[in-house]
Amino acid sequence: MPKYVYDFTEGNRDMKDLLGGKGANLAEMTNLGLPVPPGFTITTEACRVYLATGAPPPELAAEVDEHLARLEQVMGRKLGDPDDPLLVSVRSGAKFSMPGMMDTVLNIGLNDASVNGLAKQGGNERFAWDSYRRLLSMFGKTVLGVDGELFEHALDEAKKAKGTTSDLDLEADDFQRLVEVYKDIIRTHAGREFPQDPREQLNLAIRAVFESWNGERARLYRRQERIPHDLGTAVNVVAMVFGNMGLDSGTGVAFTRDPGSGDQGIYGDYLQNAQGEDVVAGIRNTVPLTELEKLNKAAYDQLLDIMRTLERHYKDLCDIEFTIERGKLWMLQTRVGKRTAAAAFRIATQLVDEGLIDMDEALQRVTGAQLAQLMFPRFDEKAAKKQIAKGVNASPGAAVGKAVFDSKTAAEYAARGERVILVRRETNPDDLPGMIAAQGILTARGGKTSHAAVVARGMGKTCVSGAEQIDIDLANRRFTGPNGEVVQEGDVISIDGTSGAVYLGEVPVVPSPVVEYFEGKLAPDADPLVSAVHRIITHADARRRLGVEANADTPEDAQRARRFGAEGIGLCRTEHMFLGERRKVVERLILAKDEAEQQAALAELLPLQRDDFVGIFEAMDGLPVTVRLIDPPLHEFLPDLTDLSVRIAVAEAKGEPVDPHDRELLDAVRRLHEQNPMLGLRGVRLGLVIPGLFALQVRAIAEAAAILIKRGKNPRPEIMVPLVGAIQELEIVREEAEGILRTVSKETGVDVHALIGTMIEVPRAALTAAQIAEAAEFFSFGTNDLTQMTWGFSRDDVEGAFFGRYMDLGIFGVSPFETLDRDGVGRLIRMAVTEGRATRPDLRIGICGEHGGDPESVHFCHEVGLDYVSCSPFRVPVARLEAGRAAVESAGSDTR
Amino acid sequence: MPKYVYDFTEGNRDMKDLLGGKGANLAEMTNLGLPVPPGFTITTEACRVYLATGAPPPELAAEVDEHLARLEQVMGRKLGDPDDPLLVSVRSGAKFSMPGMMDTVLNIGLNDASVNGLAKQGGNERFAWDSYRRLLSMFGKTVLGVDGELFEHALDEAKKAKGTTSDLDLEADDFQRLVEVYKDIIRTHAGREFPQDPREQLNLAIRAVFESWNGERARLYRRQERIPHDLGTAVNVVAMVFGNMGLDSGTGVAFTRDPGSGDQGIYGDYLQNAQGEDVVAGIRNTVPLTELEKLNKAAYDQLLDIMRTLERHYKDLCDIEFTIERGKLWMLQTRVGKRTAAAAFRIATQLVDEGLIDMDEALQRVTGAQLAQLMFPRFDEKAAKKQIAKGVNASPGAAVGKAVFDSKTAAEYAARGERVILVRRETNPDDLPGMIAAQGILTARGGKTSHAAVVARGMGKTCVSGAEQIDIDLANRRFTGPNGEVVQEGDVISIDGTSGAVYLGEVPVVPSPVVEYFEGKLAPDADPLVSAVHRIITHADARRRLGVEANADTPEDAQRARRFGAEGIGLCRTEHMFLGERRKVVERLILAKDEAEQQAALAELLPLQRDDFVGIFEAMDGLPVTVRLIDPPLHEFLPDLTDLSVRIAVAEAKGEPVDPHDRELLDAVRRLHEQNPMLGLRGVRLGLVIPGLFALQVRAIAEAAAILIKRGKNPRPEIMVPLVGAIQELEIVREEAEGILRTVSKETGVDVHALIGTMIEVPRAALTAAQIAEAAEFFSFGTNDLTQMTWGFSRDDVEGAFFGRYMDLGIFGVSPFETLDRDGVGRLIRMAVTEGRATRPDLRIGICGEHGGDPESVHFCHEVGLDYVSCSPFRVPVARLEAGRAAVESAGSDTR
Repeated sequence: MPKYVYDFTEGNRDMKDLLGGKGANLAEMTNLGLPVPPGFTITTEACRVYLATGAPPPELAAEVDEHLARLEQVMGRKLGDPDDPLLVSVRSGAKFSMPGMMDTVLNIGLNDASVNGLAKQGGNERFAWDSYRRLLSMFGKTVLGVDGELFEHALDEAKKAKGTTSDLDLEADDFQRLVEVYKDIIRTHAGREFPQDPREQLNLAIRAVFESWNGERARLYRRQERIPHDLGTAVNVVAMVFGNMGLDSGTGVAFTRDPGSGDQGIYGDYLQNAQGEDVVAGIRNTVPLTELEKLNKAAYDQLLDIMRTLERHYKDLCDIEFTIERGKLWMLQTRVGKRTAAAAFRIATQLVDEGLIDMDEALQRVTGAQLAQLMFPRFDEKAAKKQIAKGVNASPGAAVGKAVFDSKTAAEYAARGERVILVRRETNPDDLPGMIAAQGILTARGGKTSHAAVVARGMGKTCVSGAEQIDIDLANRRFTGPNGEVVQEGDVISIDGTSGAVYLGEVPVVPSPVVEYFEGKLAPDADPLVSAVHRIITHADARRRLGVEANADTPEDAQRARRFGAEGIGLCRTEHMFLGERRKVVERLILAKDEAEQQAALAELLPLQRDDFVGIFEAMDGLPVTVRLIDPPLHEFLPDLTDLSVRIAVAEAKGEPVDPHDRELLDAVRRLHEQNPMLGLRGVRLGLVIPGLFALQVRAIAEAAAILIKRGKNPRPEIMVPLVGAIQELEIVREEAEGILRTVSKETGVDVHALIGTMIEVPRAALTAAQIAEAAEFFSFGTNDLTQMTWGFSRDDVEGAFFGRYMDLGIFGVSPFETLDRDGVGRLIRMAVTEGRATRPDLRIGICGEHGGDPESVHFCHEVGLDYVSCSPFRVPVARLEAGRAAVESAGSDTR
Repeated sequence: MPKYVYDFTEGNRDMKDLLGGKGANLAEMTNLGLPVPPGFTITTEACRVYLATGAPPPELAAEVDEHLARLEQVMGRKLGDPDDPLLVSVRSGAKFSMPGMMDTVLNIGLNDASVNGLAKQGGNERFAWDSYRRLLSMFGKTVLGVDGELFEHALDEAKKAKGTTSDLDLEADDFQRLVEVYKDIIRTHAGREFPQDPREQLNLAIRAVFESWNGERARLYRRQERIPHDLGTAVNVVAMVFGNMGLDSGTGVAFTRDPGSGDQGIYGDYLQNAQGEDVVAGIRNTVPLTELEKLNKAAYDQLLDIMRTLERHYKDLCDIEFTIERGKLWMLQTRVGKRTAAAAFRIATQLVDEGLIDMDEALQRVTGAQLAQLMFPRFDEKAAKKQIAKGVNASPGAAVGKAVFDSKTAAEYAARGERVILVRRETNPDDLPGMIAAQGILTARGGKTSHAAVVARGMGKTCVSGAEQIDIDLANRRFTGPNGEVVQEGDVISIDGTSGAVYLGEVPVVPSPVVEYFEGKLAPDADPLVSAVHRIITHADARRRLGVEANADTPEDAQRARRFGAEGIGLCRTEHMFLGERRKVVERLILAKDEAEQQAALAELLPLQRDDFVGIFEAMDGLPVTVRLIDPPLHEFLPDLTDLSVRIAVAEAKGEPVDPHDRELLDAVRRLHEQNPMLGLRGVRLGLVIPGLFALQVRAIAEAAAILIKRGKNPRPEIMVPLVGAIQELEIVREEAEGILRTVSKETGVDVHALIGTMIEVPRAALTAAQIAEAAEFFSFGTNDLTQMTWGFSRDDVEGAFFGRYMDLGIFGVSPFETLDRDGVGRLIRMAVTEGRATRPDLRIGICGEHGGDPESVHFCHEVGLDYVSCSPFRVPVARLEAGRAAVESAGSDTR
């Protein structure tokens, strides 16, 4: 028979699955001999039985009785004793912290009789009736489901009757009257009396905590945080201690070092004569914890001693909650404390220096997300700033530019080289061009899942959303701040996507020291943060098994990526090699009347593209450069159908002459128009339909490599065929490419080699990977397209259109374009890796979608045994860090 | 050690894997005691060794020696004997017939010496030198790789020198001179002498046959026919017999009954004093086989006797090739003969009546493709017709209409209710609207894989492509036939997609008697063909395990489907319920300023849609009707972006007033515009984003069911949610739908039930089927979308754009939209079936894409254990037949 109840003396911190986080840590502190109010924990298992059957396990009541009796014995008081009652709190506590999501009831054990005992024992009638009143409202609301507003309203009425607005002015008899009013409210709205039997109070409170696991808020929170729904919560029953019994009492919270900077020292707040809920309510101001030394030196010294004990014991920053009851210190909670990104890195290395943890552990204490935060530019903290509004911190970073009020104006300003902030009530897909043109986006409506927020995060643009204080006057092209500040179109503003602040004028931006370190502009020991980052990422590099490459299309990008630690280019797109000045040639290629014209256009492109590759291979000398042959459909190189149609129709309507070239173009645009270009004539299909197109690119690559080899360099090109769905496609391209490599080798007298492989980005490629590996020397997962096709939605079309709604509904915790969807896309990847390697054991396998730089996705790539990840240069350090963490994590799980 | 060579006396017809089709049947005939020239077969296994290692198995030479010696002994002649040489033919013969794809060499054994022996023994010098000349050209071309044109040219020169154009005028010494010329050609172009050693001739010929397996034509053919590349071919070495030794010799082909109609009797052709290759070359006209009775009664009687023997033995229509050498009959080949669709059905039932086969076997003798052919309307054979051109029979059927020369005109005529044939040089995607509007398509260019052909077959439209004789004059809107017939736009033409014929004027179309039978207009015994179809499909119904349902959206479709044997509606689309008169309401829904306006629009649609469902459920009373909730994106209900933009811009340019509604519409169209609507806001996404949309539909379904139940009917609605990719989506819709069903039950006092399930059409749905089955009572594979997303191409965009090229390259044998792609899409289906049933053993699973009516795909559906297929009403009989065949086939393979 399982044991459903554990005394605090019976548990420990490793029992979080069973006792929840709070219960396990209370047990741990109890066993450390710290002053924890006695109590016990009802297990998550009991909760699971309750959730499955609708009733607690039959054995639970007897076990609670037994533990309650022991608690009464220890405390020397009995629950509900009319003369000297024991009071208990009933608190939820799940394995994973779900702050504010579930229920707590304090002061269980009070009733019409024991309230007098409490008054007598405490010598404080006001305190006793206040405590009873609090029990009634909390119990009424959370256990009996009465609307909490009713209690609030009654309290307000009582204050009004007294002619005050503060609880502190209410006296014992005021609260006594309120108790009767509250009991009435319960009677009327719950359809039953408040239970006078303390044991019944306790039972009902325990049930209520169990049920709160499935409350709507809690379910939504779990969906968003990806916490499984079947864990259940534990219930902690703890003897009440009171910080509100006079000036020798109080309550506080503290950190064992600065959670903001990581600096060592004492950080915390204290509130005299108060209970925890008062701190939250913000009725009075707290004082710095150091003040406690003056108020109660013994308790203060004891607290510092306990904090040192906890930090050595937990080997990490801890946060704690405590209460002082009539001069005596009680520990109510501890846990490993949250901290900022900078503090995380600094504390991790400090703990190594203190000999508490090793570098592997330090690496586990930081995350790629934290490193990414440290790499955003910030506003200069010391600069004078005039904040005019605050919104939701929707996409981090610091952006400065002229306010503009529509997408078109944004694009116009940007075309003139001006930096702009796009300001909109809210955005929709029409605003995309403006969002692309802007440094940042500011909206008056919408939260973190609004269109603006989702799209901006996808683009890596700074965004402040839902700044409701600003009033946009589109007609007059201006907005007004809450204090009347007027921002006209063209006025400069600054927005902080990390804090949500909106400033008037230009706030100086300071570059990230961490980025300056990666770029070699700052020494590894330049400051404590840089030093911590340097030590940890160096360790990550030593530990990781995954290679980290970059997606880079130009020599400049390649150089930057190399400085950031990239070990090659995993994706070199070639689309831009057909743009700019060359667009005219591409037009000729598309409009060609015969193959001769087609070949002439291609021949014109050859020397230009050869030079492109020379530059890129040179920048990555000695490292692999995976070149993706041209992927987008041809009509992307032509004007937009609607624009062109309107232009011609308008000219015709006005009787103006129409450029014959425009007409020719329109014919081509119409001919090439596709309903769904993402699913159209692109990638390998284009290569197989347009003779000479891929051949041009392969020749340019081969000739560039030959030039560099002659210069004594070591170019390592790899040729990647996009959008392959069937081995036959790859075989045909491969045969042609090998022929060209041989020809160029012969022509140049230099042996030119290149691996030939394919993107795996069409679901069918993953499903037939065993076949495709016969013709591919490497696979590179194009997880953007693979995600689009596996889910059947196009990123451009749906992110803004419904991802926000899907996140609200809990269908996504996070966009599958940000973090790789393990169940769907991930399953295809696993299949392709396993089956591809079964065919070709030395198959080189990487990933080159945006997921390559996403922390969780990097772990997945490690797990499934990829050889490398490739991501944007800026993300390379994040990927290095997470690859190291993944290696340490899996080494740890192997030995456990 | 494997045995690489089998004498004809050692094999039998079941050894096709090893001996190839030709070898196995020659052995079978030999063992039946029929007059087959002696010989032996070198196995496919020897070929496979050759292909893998580049050399024949070392043991082969000795085995060939041994069998050759036995052959020489039987024939009483020696290979290459200068006095009385044995000649042999070396013929390829793979497991699957690959007509004309591989090589044959006749007259092996002739050289400068034995040619004289042959002349002496045959008493015919001309014959001997002609035979030697033929050997040299065949050997030079197929074994030594010399361009065959060179020999043709030399032959032409010889004829020119003689002042003739016919081989028959050449005499012995002409051929003797040609032999020297041919030897010269070989010497010059092959770089070696023609081998005089007969054994070397034989060895080289065997190798050449092995190598022809990997010839370019053969590889392409196999790709297209989906014949595995690793089978290899067998090689038959057969003693030569000669039909060209005088008037008492000859050669012929015959069928054991009429392959056209299935009628019993003698069908064949005979050519006196000729070899097989002469028949093919068509030098002289053949005579009906019955003429042979007059020429050689003994041989004729023997042949009839043999044909009866073969038919009783093979229990099927056989075709044969034979040669008569100086009065003696020799059988050169037999195989089960090809036949027309009508003959297939009639012969199958005839053989049952003759007691040769049972009904299971009869069912295996016909195919769904044949049944489909019988269901197309045809032109009245007896009607007077004026054929003006002939093109490629690109998509079957008979179509009549006015010739129109562009897409727009086609649409205009059709809008007036006129039938049109779209006539184009060739089509491209711009012509789609015209193709949709037309009865049929006629093009001057392109074959079976041209844009027109591929798209027309996809649409089920009649198409004649590549009618190169017609000359289209677009400027004058007319075309001219080869004999000067002029067809102006608006003139009526008739095209036969089954034969490729183009007729002037209206040719009367006769409906298919098979369709009339299915529609109940003809009795099952109305004619022999109908009777055969009736018997076989009735047997298929008795045998099949798969249910067959129909895709039908209206009561009329539903009734038709029911007559064709549908056991329910597997896909009832609901898009049309938002079209027509209702489009205005849908516009209001889309343009709604608030939820009240939205709900008002939905409320207006409710009674209309309820009536729609009443009609459909009534037509399918007692059978399931699977209703798919609305799938397409909303902008499909609005005008086209480019059209609308042009209209407004033109009005503005002319200074005309712009309809404010147009502006409002344009805003909405822009807002809803998607780059890739296929991957956009549609299906369940729409249902989750637009409150009340799915609810409207579910309510209409539930209320319709309630109305019918009250009328004593038995409606069986099933609610199908489209485009689900994650269980969470389905859970939310399901919860809402169940609520509505309960509400309507309460409101109407009638218990309304409906299964709730989902399409599996997004790859992720298949990959997470185990999860999704928790919330789905049925799965229906939407294989159109599933194919699009698994391959990553949209049917609309790519079929015309590159499928033709892909088929030419051998990447597809058949469009994956026609026949289900087993390796990719099929793998997802298998996974989803297995894993879905593991979660929910009674999960009902069907398919509702177009594949549901494709014969090969129906077999796949049977194999993977689906419960039913659903297809267009017209395809229902095909699916019934193939489902029966699949059941018989798998029962057979189970017991083997």
